[in-house]
Amino acid sequence: MEYKAIKGTRDFTPLQMQKRNYIFDTIKKVYLSHGFLQIETPAMESLNTLMGKYGEEGDKLLFKILDSGEFLKKEEVNEFSNLINTSSINKATKMISEKGLRYDLTVPFARFVVNHRNEITFPFKRFQIQPVWRADRPQKGRYREFYQCDADIIGSDSLLNEIELVQIISEVFELLGLEISIKLNNRKILATFAQLLGKEEHLQDLTVAIDKLDKVGMDNVLKELQDKGFSAEDCDKILPILNIKGSNEEKLLSLQNIIGQIDIGKKGIEEIKYIIDKTQKIGINNLDLDITLARGLNYYTGAIIEVKAVGMAMGSITGGGRYDNLTGIFGMPNVSGVGISFGADRIYDCLEEKNLFPSEITNSTKVLFINFGEKENEACMMVANELRKQEIFCEIYPENAKLKKQMKYANDRHFPFVILIGEEELTNSTCVIKNMTSGEQQVVNTNEIISYLS
Amino acid sequence: MEYKAIKGTRDFTPLQMQKRNYIFDTIKKVYLSHGFLQIETPAMESLNTLMGKYGEEGDKLLFKILDSGEFLKKEEVNEFSNLINTSSINKATKMISEKGLRYDLTVPFARFVVNHRNEITFPFKRFQIQPVWRADRPQKGRYREFYQCDADIIGSDSLLNEIELVQIISEVFELLGLEISIKLNNRKILATFAQLLGKEEHLQDLTVAIDKLDKVGMDNVLKELQDKGFSAEDCDKILPILNIKGSNEEKLLSLQNIIGQIDIGKKGIEEIKYIIDKTQKIGINNLDLDITLARGLNYYTGAIIEVKAVGMAMGSITGGGRYDNLTGIFGMPNVSGVGISFGADRIYDCLEEKNLFPSEITNSTKVLFINFGEKENEACMMVANELRKQEIFCEIYPENAKLKKQMKYANDRHFPFVILIGEEELTNSTCVIKNMTSGEQQVVNTNEIISYLS
Repeated sequence: MEYKAIKGTRDFTPLQMQKRNYIFDTIKKVYLSHGFLQIETPAMESLNTLMGKYGEEGDKLLFKILDSGEFLKKEEVNEFSNLINTSSINKATKMISEKGLRYDLTVPFARFVVNHRNEITFPFKRFQIQPVWRADRPQKGRYREFYQCDADIIGSDSLLNEIELVQIISEVFELLGLEISIKLNNRKILATFAQLLGKEEHLQDLTVAIDKLDKVGMDNVLKELQDKGFSAEDCDKILPILNIKGSNEEKLLSLQNIIGQIDIGKKGIEEIKYIIDKTQKIGINNLDLDITLARGLNYYTGAIIEVKAVGMAMGSITGGGRYDNLTGIFGMPNVSGVGISFGADRIYDCLEEKNLFPSEITNSTKVLFINFGEKENEACMMVANELRKQEIFCEIYPENAKLKKQMKYANDRHFPFVILIGEEELTNSTCVIKNMTSGEQQVVNTNEIISYLS
Repeated sequence: MEYKAIKGTRDFTPLQMQKRNYIFDTIKKVYLSHGFLQIETPAMESLNTLMGKYGEEGDKLLFKILDSGEFLKKEEVNEFSNLINTSSINKATKMISEKGLRYDLTVPFARFVVNHRNEITFPFKRFQIQPVWRADRPQKGRYREFYQCDADIIGSDSLLNEIELVQIISEVFELLGLEISIKLNNRKILATFAQLLGKEEHLQDLTVAIDKLDKVGMDNVLKELQDKGFSAEDCDKILPILNIKGSNEEKLLSLQNIIGQIDIGKKGIEEIKYIIDKTQKIGINNLDLDITLARGLNYYTGAIIEVKAVGMAMGSITGGGRYDNLTGIFGMPNVSGVGISFGADRIYDCLEEKNLFPSEITNSTKVLFINFGEKENEACMMVANELRKQEIFCEIYPENAKLKKQMKYANDRHFPFVILIGEEELTNSTCVIKNMTSGEQQVVNTNEIISYLS
């Protein structure tokens, strides 16, 4: 029998972990520097909490956990068999499963806020970096287990929160060295389109259709709209808006002319203007108004944001937006929030493709001590202790193996330095330090090793 | 309907996360400083990988994941119903579930080593900090989701590895400020007992019985041994060994007299001696030979280690040992390894009870800027950017709310400093810095804030 990681899930080797941690640590540090606080929620949630929050398709993609022990009683067998025989999979599932793995971090976060409302200081700025699971068909770039890196501010409707999140996006990618463009839109603009056509109740259909523009092109978007009940006349009205081109100022002016008289449109334009103005003042110049930006999730109500890597054929690598009623589903209505989520896997692929991972992240251990036997080894242990106190990470080869074998280990593991304390060095209280990059060797007094390596 | 975290699982609030991260970061740093490299494995594994590795009881405690989609076909309903009706739960489970959540980090690690054997440089020093899941009945201190923090060295049978792990344990608890005693024994000693009695095939029963000594007392251990087929005469032979008292040297001497003539006993004594001698040389004086230490897991073959907090009624907070054939179950025999695992939850409880969490870990954000309106806020954003560049973490209150409300937020969130830039300060390029601990306020020039706060 072959034992492997399950399809769509991944082992991460030390090298991959060093690169992944570099991304997570960068995001985490920027979140912390802006006063966001970390929380964690359990991998498993009650299916009552998860079901119905991600649409019908999402419910199917939830990993469900079989109830423990005797999951189906003998007296339930008939009912269960009938459900299977009538293809009532959902009802059959309910009989044997009450828990599922989280599908994203947003719904568990909403439950967290409701459960802990009395301990939380609002506005609540939280971040959360944890894996999520989706029972999707695995394919290139689509995994069944992957990490999300979310930050949300909940309990404040100030646009300064949107601005801070744009700033965070900007800082993270600046630190990672990846050139990006940030696309901004507002659900109020889309809502105005729907109002303009007298089709408010079809806002979700409109959003879903426009969201696909990038992938399927304008003709197919218009076709989907007509399939969903929009008339050819409706499409004629929408088309020029979706085709608005130019600088941010020009686009805003065009929008103003078309929908500036409608209350909700006016509000949307104001919000976009405010965010663009303020972010420009703090030096962010890569924020682009994109009127065709829609985003799939239906809970957004205000600003929506998406980030793309410049010059790369890669989907959105970060996204987010304002929602006015996320906690409402759990009985705590009218709490406004805004959040973003970094897609660590895609960012990893971008950095890899552009060769942007700093080389130093992959040699966390600086020194290998060669093992020449009992006495020499005791001396190495003393020196190693001193190095570690100075945050110089090091290890001693655990066996008195042939020098060639130990040096091969040093090479394979990419230690920048190797220290050799043999019989002679032991007598003289010296050591030989070999620089593995240059190949140079130098004899150093034992008490000078730290200053040599620092 | 009430929506809550599932029983036995936990939400972690920002305060709890700060304390947990303090523990994880400490362990991680010590692991890294000794040259251990991090890996991660998926939460889900094939049930083929997991089943049969933790005993019958362990198999029951695995969380099993329902197969996706149509998990049972109509033509399988009869077979499935028969299995339920004949209480063949295991076989019924196999029909609808092929994946489970990991139960520990050791078995997935063994699979990892086998799968990646060609990329790994041996000896392989890996660490892994991830949650595990057990379908246990939740009770105080026993969770269905909890983190393990493992380090293992695989592919080297040198005792220097055991010594390094003892050193790591010592360093971690030194950094955490928690007084511990480290108990050491060797499975070879237990194997010698079994040999002495001519009951080699009952080594596992002997180990399991002795393992309970702490909890149930000597009388009950002897009773269990007799239940498992050991005679009263056998018990008379074991009792004096289990009762050996004194210093490490005295215990070793007693052991030598009783089992020193048996090959495997001699080897066990030598190993214990070597580890005690070497660790003493590097200044570790809290390592105690405990002949009654057995540890439950059956794959240990050499040194076994357990750590207790001194003066606390708490079980083992860290444990580990040497195993000679962990990867054998996955088709890669004769690879020796040794590992330890820190129990983060129990360590958390110890630090909490002894009030050992440093106070500074809970105020990650140093400064709150009070929001006095548009213009003032823009000035705050500029200053905040400068502070963040100096790694001074800060945030601006997102709304121009009443000062009282903003100051309440500052208090609730425990910011050490509050900076106020009002109209007057804006004109003079100054700010008021309030020290929230002392209550003192001081007017400072804007360009001197950083030196004031550093």
